[in-house]
Amino acid sequence: MSEARFDVVGIGSAIVDILAHTEDSFLSNHEAPKGTMLWVEEDQSDALYKEIGPAIEASGGSAANTMAGIASFGGKPAFIGKTKQDQLGAIFAHDIRAVGVHYETEPLQEGLASARCIILVTPDAQRTMFTYLGASGSLSASDMDPDLIAASKVLYIEGYQWDLPETKTAIIEACKVVGRAGGKVALTLSDPFVVERHRNDLFDLVNEYVDILFANEQEITTLFRSNTFDGAVEAIDGRVEIAALTRGEDGAVTVTKDKLIQTPAAPVKKVVDTTGAGDLYAAGFLFGHTRGDDLKTCANLGALAAAEVISHMGARPELSLKDLAQKNGF
Amino acid sequence: MSEARFDVVGIGSAIVDILAHTEDSFLSNHEAPKGTMLWVEEDQSDALYKEIGPAIEASGGSAANTMAGIASFGGKPAFIGKTKQDQLGAIFAHDIRAVGVHYETEPLQEGLASARCIILVTPDAQRTMFTYLGASGSLSASDMDPDLIAASKVLYIEGYQWDLPETKTAIIEACKVVGRAGGKVALTLSDPFVVERHRNDLFDLVNEYVDILFANEQEITTLFRSNTFDGAVEAIDGRVEIAALTRGEDGAVTVTKDKLIQTPAAPVKKVVDTTGAGDLYAAGFLFGHTRGDDLKTCANLGALAAAEVISHMGARPELSLKDLAQKNGF
Repeated sequence: MSEARFDVVGIGSAIVDILAHTEDSFLSNHEAPKGTMLWVEEDQSDALYKEIGPAIEASGGSAANTMAGIASFGGKPAFIGKTKQDQLGAIFAHDIRAVGVHYETEPLQEGLASARCIILVTPDAQRTMFTYLGASGSLSASDMDPDLIAASKVLYIEGYQWDLPETKTAIIEACKVVGRAGGKVALTLSDPFVVERHRNDLFDLVNEYVDILFANEQEITTLFRSNTFDGAVEAIDGRVEIAALTRGEDGAVTVTKDKLIQTPAAPVKKVVDTTGAGDLYAAGFLFGHTRGDDLKTCANLGALAAAEVISHMGARPELSLKDLAQKNGF
Repeated sequence: MSEARFDVVGIGSAIVDILAHTEDSFLSNHEAPKGTMLWVEEDQSDALYKEIGPAIEASGGSAANTMAGIASFGGKPAFIGKTKQDQLGAIFAHDIRAVGVHYETEPLQEGLASARCIILVTPDAQRTMFTYLGASGSLSASDMDPDLIAASKVLYIEGYQWDLPETKTAIIEACKVVGRAGGKVALTLSDPFVVERHRNDLFDLVNEYVDILFANEQEITTLFRSNTFDGAVEAIDGRVEIAALTRGEDGAVTVTKDKLIQTPAAPVKKVVDTTGAGDLYAAGFLFGHTRGDDLKTCANLGALAAAEVISHMGARPELSLKDLAQKNGF
């Protein structure tokens, strides 16, 4: 693995976020469960956009945020995800390259517009997401550059992609490519509803390919149909090399075949917007892991990055995570 | 005037801002005078964009920001400015309507793309702007709805528009319309280089049509070719009914034929990004003026709104200025 050109290659949706503040009542009026992600069609996205207040736009996408975080730590990430050649697509491509992520996926010349995600932040700093996938949903086998994937220590996958049959199949091929090259497969379960919809497929993926599994409490209990977090932890039972489980302000639990490491959340002055918390936890953890840190340090780096991203609006770090890590002695 | 449907109608560029942090050296390498605005062509804008770091997008435009501020105070503003029917144009139109500004200018169906302004914020919180005007430069007489303009207490104009001969001519017609209807004309000088380029035209405009003049120290001294601020104040000499002059952290001076009122800047915990400071000063001042406040209160409302907008990234208020004004006893 010493020859790997990239620490991590992420595969996911190439999305620009549209961030606005809202009240809880707006979510209940739209029957949107707080804290989750809903797929919407273009007309639904447009209708919702008309109803929300003034917004700001910032590049997002779960795996893309994670790659941006790894770059901010000083790691070497790459990203595969589809845009259209339009203004939002140009914004996405600019931002991910500007932060130092290798990104060369060919944009669509015509057809569906670039993806956007309306993220509504309630006064409790929780975010609820309405994703119009557009061009991003047409990621397919031809976008999975095997040289790039084989040149990466870790392939990082969004569970969200399991809603896209063609993409899912292409990703499984990518898992085989990275495995043959001696790399590892990491998966984030993304969202409890995604896990619910694709439980069997994700379960098979975890058993067959996944080395490093990221999940929050709701997602891991849904995957293992467990009533309790402890039950879910038991159910992991060596299925993956590492399970990196997050529990919000209660910190994180890292589970391996023979160890269970508990680590606290990093302190945050004021939680402003929880968008990207899980994505940046994965960034810190994978950055540490690919440079050879012990698991406790990996978890602490994850917590540090998550704390930075929830202290402001938007899902990507505003500060240099490299500087932040150094300041905190990592 | 009691029948006016709008407090203020603003005419200006319909722009989406692209905000990024940068170092001073980046500006000097690009020979960009800090704190000013430079017009750029599309290819220059694209080349610059490639060089800057990750950015966020937020609706901007000087007069548009002022109208957004008036709406946030609870006033009734309208805006006239041109976009193209593209993704950035949709963002601009959404945001200005979402905050409560009447905005019905027909977007271009083809031709130049919607305007964008790359705003680079240096560590001292100063902003330097690179504006690609695009569709926004094709605002013309046919966009100047005379019913809308006649239904407004104040017509508010950006000095920036004097770089656009066709728009400038259309705006002078609009001045006549609002004057005949019994309304007033307000002008912001926008930028010292704009004043330098169009000094004679702006001087004539001020003498002939302008009732309320907004300028900072550099702009007013440039207009009157004065070496000192006091010299510029003397030169005003009743040319306008009210001159609202801002001096950054040194506060503001409101000048009328027989009065000179000095008011302090409002306190700010930390200046993050000075983008929009002048725009929001004008918003507070005009909101107060159109509801009949005395000049000192107008100036204090301006200072309050400016202080809010410089405490965060972006040129439009994040907090409700109505609430902020009430909290501060206005």
